[in-house]
Amino acid sequence: MLFKIDLNSDIGESFGAYKIGRDEEIVKYISSANIACGFHAGDPNVMAKTVKYCREYNVEIGAHPGFPDLLGFGRRNMDVSPEEVKNYLIYQIGALKAFAEAQGLKLQHVKAHGALYNMAMKDAKLAAAIVEAIGLVDEDLICVGLGNSELEYCANKKGIKYAIEFFADRNYNPDGTLVPRSAPNAVIHDEEEACKRILKMVKEGKVVAVDGSEVEVRSKTVCIHGDNPKAVDFASKLNKLFKENGIEIQPMKNLF
Amino acid sequence: MLFKIDLNSDIGESFGAYKIGRDEEIVKYISSANIACGFHAGDPNVMAKTVKYCREYNVEIGAHPGFPDLLGFGRRNMDVSPEEVKNYLIYQIGALKAFAEAQGLKLQHVKAHGALYNMAMKDAKLAAAIVEAIGLVDEDLICVGLGNSELEYCANKKGIKYAIEFFADRNYNPDGTLVPRSAPNAVIHDEEEACKRILKMVKEGKVVAVDGSEVEVRSKTVCIHGDNPKAVDFASKLNKLFKENGIEIQPMKNLF
Amino acid sequence: MLFKIDLNSDIGESFGAYKIGRDEEIVKYISSANIACGFHAGDPNVMAKTVKYCREYNVEIGAHPGFPDLLGFGRRNMDVSPEEVKNYLIYQIGALKAFAEAQGLKLQHVKAHGALYNMAMKDAKLAAAIVEAIGLVDEDLICVGLGNSELEYCANKKGIKYAIEFFADRNYNPDGTLVPRSAPNAVIHDEEEACKRILKMVKEGKVVAVDGSEVEVRSKTVCIHGDNPKAVDFASKLNKLFKENGIEIQPMKNLF
Amino acid sequence: MLFKIDLNSDIGESFGAYKIGRDEEIVKYISSANIACGFHAGDPNVMAKTVKYCREYNVEIGAHPGFPDLLGFGRRNMDVSPEEVKNYLIYQIGALKAFAEAQGLKLQHVKAHGALYNMAMKDAKLAAAIVEAIGLVDEDLICVGLGNSELEYCANKKGIKYAIEFFADRNYNPDGTLVPRSAPNAVIHDEEEACKRILKMVKEGKVVAVDGSEVEVRSKTVCIHGDNPKAVDFASKLNKLFKENGIEIQPMKNLF
Repeated sequence: MLFKIDLNSDIGESFGAYKIGRDEEIVKYISSANIACGFHAGDPNVMAKTVKYCREYNVEIGAHPGFPDLLGFGRRNMDVSPEEVKNYLIYQIGALKAFAEAQGLKLQHVKAHGALYNMAMKDAKLAAAIVEAIGLVDEDLICVGLGNSELEYCANKKGIKYAIEFFADRNYNPDGTLVPRSAPNAVIHDEEEACKRILKMVKEGKVVAVDGSEVEVRSKTVCIHGDNPKAVDFASKLNKLFKENGIEIQPMKNLF
Repeated sequence: MLFKIDLNSDIGESFGAYKIGRDEEIVKYISSANIACGFHAGDPNVMAKTVKYCREYNVEIGAHPGFPDLLGFGRRNMDVSPEEVKNYLIYQIGALKAFAEAQGLKLQHVKAHGALYNMAMKDAKLAAAIVEAIGLVDEDLICVGLGNSELEYCANKKGIKYAIEFFADRNYNPDGTLVPRSAPNAVIHDEEEACKRILKMVKEGKVVAVDGSEVEVRSKTVCIHGDNPKAVDFASKLNKLFKENGIEIQPMKNLF
Repeated sequence: MLFKIDLNSDIGESFGAYKIGRDEEIVKYISSANIACGFHAGDPNVMAKTVKYCREYNVEIGAHPGFPDLLGFGRRNMDVSPEEVKNYLIYQIGALKAFAEAQGLKLQHVKAHGALYNMAMKDAKLAAAIVEAIGLVDEDLICVGLGNSELEYCANKKGIKYAIEFFADRNYNPDGTLVPRSAPNAVIHDEEEACKRILKMVKEGKVVAVDGSEVEVRSKTVCIHGDNPKAVDFASKLNKLFKENGIEIQPMKNLF
Repeated sequence: MLFKIDLNSDIGESFGAYKIGRDEEIVKYISSANIACGFHAGDPNVMAKTVKYCREYNVEIGAHPGFPDLLGFGRRNMDVSPEEVKNYLIYQIGALKAFAEAQGLKLQHVKAHGALYNMAMKDAKLAAAIVEAIGLVDEDLICVGLGNSELEYCANKKGIKYAIEFFADRNYNPDGTLVPRSAPNAVIHDEEEACKRILKMVKEGKVVAVDGSEVEVRSKTVCIHGDNPKAVDFASKLNKLFKENGIEIQPMKNLF
């Protein structure tokens, strides 16, 4: 096949008696899983089970660390120091790494969650803390995030592999950044449109920005939101579409 | 020198703004540290700092996992399934392992905390869960606990190294088990007496039981309670006593 | 109408981004709500919203306090002292009381949750702690639990009103206690059978025990499990059945 | 006596096995206690015990609610919505109110903690949320905070009593606001100087600002930091100083 792309999704976000997402189904359609590590979501039992699902379907495993805010699902900005962020990441990545190794697997990547993800794109010190934590745990781990972000700059500077992710359901500015969620046209609700954008991105490396201009994107992976009830259907449809278009789904580690 | 013994202590039990123990002093006198892993005590910042103390003073590092009960400091029995215990341990050991490796160190051992420790001595299923978790994370890790316990039997059966710890401040039954805390003579409060017992144990491998008989103990390590305010003084005194008696303090890994 | 009975259900068990139960529907069919108070489930936002649902549908409000074990949903036995249980209850009942009063309502009852509920039926000290906490917060609160239990004895002794609840889906022993869940015939899965049993209990005050004998039950309230996906349908069916049989649904406070 | 002033201190900040502050001593010297409510610090057992101390020494009781961030001791800014803040306060005030009433006492005041306190001084929406929560629980409760703050404006607008607190160890700007902690001269370290400032404030209602000008302050209460190890000594000294200067210590409710 001519084209290759990774599909990633946040999974393992259940907690105790609380269930979020249809993890056991979405793993059939993705190549990389971002697994919650017990701070904003997930717990040790969920992590063990989620790693098992990934092993069964040959999905690569990544840590999805977040703020210590289960009540807010890690979606609330917290004024946490870079030193604390570094240690929160070492802790969470280390915990997931143990579950992966206990089942004979290796971690592939790290993708920060929610508010921590968003803050690290713009705050150079938080970005540096994340990249440092990754390097300390395993310098072969891939860091996942937005393009043209502080996190990308920092990963590049420190020699940590960086995978830019593409959001099929988000509009882009002409400079390649995302239209902020506060803007009325931030989100693309039409699924057909989202599919078209993904195909164009994979085949041409480009996306049509809000002003109609074509912007180069350098994404290795497409993010599928796992907590959306339609996520499994969309992932399934995307798998079919890729097959029809000669696009091979490959874990991001094979795309460097 | 003729004799060798390990001194272990529970440290890293502070949490956020809350401080317990004089970790930065006790590490000068011990050879093995049991570091809390964030469930019953400890947090990522404390873990990073505690590992640093251990590195500075060449103290070997062990995980000290407990029940998810910060409010009860892991001292309350909880009806947790063996599967859950296994996953709680993989999580906690994995998290600490990452902090150790981030500073170029390797974990030496695992010692369960509080109620989990006590329950695992008598419950074969919990003991098996702990031993399985240790084996899954790193089969070279030493398991620490009481002698003649379910945990010891299970570790021996599964080929995991087991270090029996000696409690200098506790009375022993003729069968080598501890007199339960509910008994009036469970605890030895006299420090001189405790020192004598340790010397006898190290030199002769024996302890005088409550009935006056001599019991063989096979301990490789002596436990010093770290949250006791007098712990640092006692540890210092013990170091001096060992020097005077030709006893070398060695991490437990050197005693197998 | 000739007969009156209360229908109670556990609601408000969602937490942050995690949703359990269809609270906004079940409140249409019950007369008393047991609202989680933030320890085993629930959070301040959920509590405020749940109280609002109850106000809209004239459902009486009760506190549903549990062990501080969100990870285990309060379903795991914990070795908590009576003094601690008393304080956990004052805390949780007080918190819910504030939400009720903020919306102009009064608490009607208290029903312990999960493992705490089960333990308090058999442990006289825990039962006393619960009854004492209720008395300290508001001596007019009704205590809900099983018949022939330590909790009932203690409430009666201390002059706290006690409402025995009936479990339509559980088999009874000839002495009026529940067949333990470990027994093969503990649970009644057939919905028609459950309905019949409820009608007999309401009309005759009796239930047919496992040995075929008729046992007197003195229940003022029937428990409907809220986290069951079929709960809303069953509650709706029960409402219809009651109407057809001249049974009026009334909050338990009207049945003393 | 001619002059009256309230002394307030944050107490009840211990948690489980973790102890902070010398609560049982500081209560001898203050007239109003701000008691942690289990979110940033404190737990049900600590709350019960702290209320008991206050009752023994006739200290008035206030709620000291904070962010749900035990790990950060409530000192980290969190991006929490006003609706959430309102519910967090109803929950925490309600819980403490139950402990007070269980011992026959009434709450006197509410003082937000740490980051929530600081944010509410500048953010009109958070201030409104706090004032609304206080009004919903008990409109006679006194709200405590800085002068010339959003919280003061809002309390005045809504008819909630407001007690401005004076910080003896902080420098003031000419407009009556505090010199921010980031400035080099923010904190007054000399205890004698702090005492002088308190006397001047109580007797003349004025403080000398950083530019040498005299600024009117309208404080009803002086804050003594309870977690400072010297706090008890300072509180004791202040009590003696007040006696010598004809100043009577009175709970803030007597100063309106």
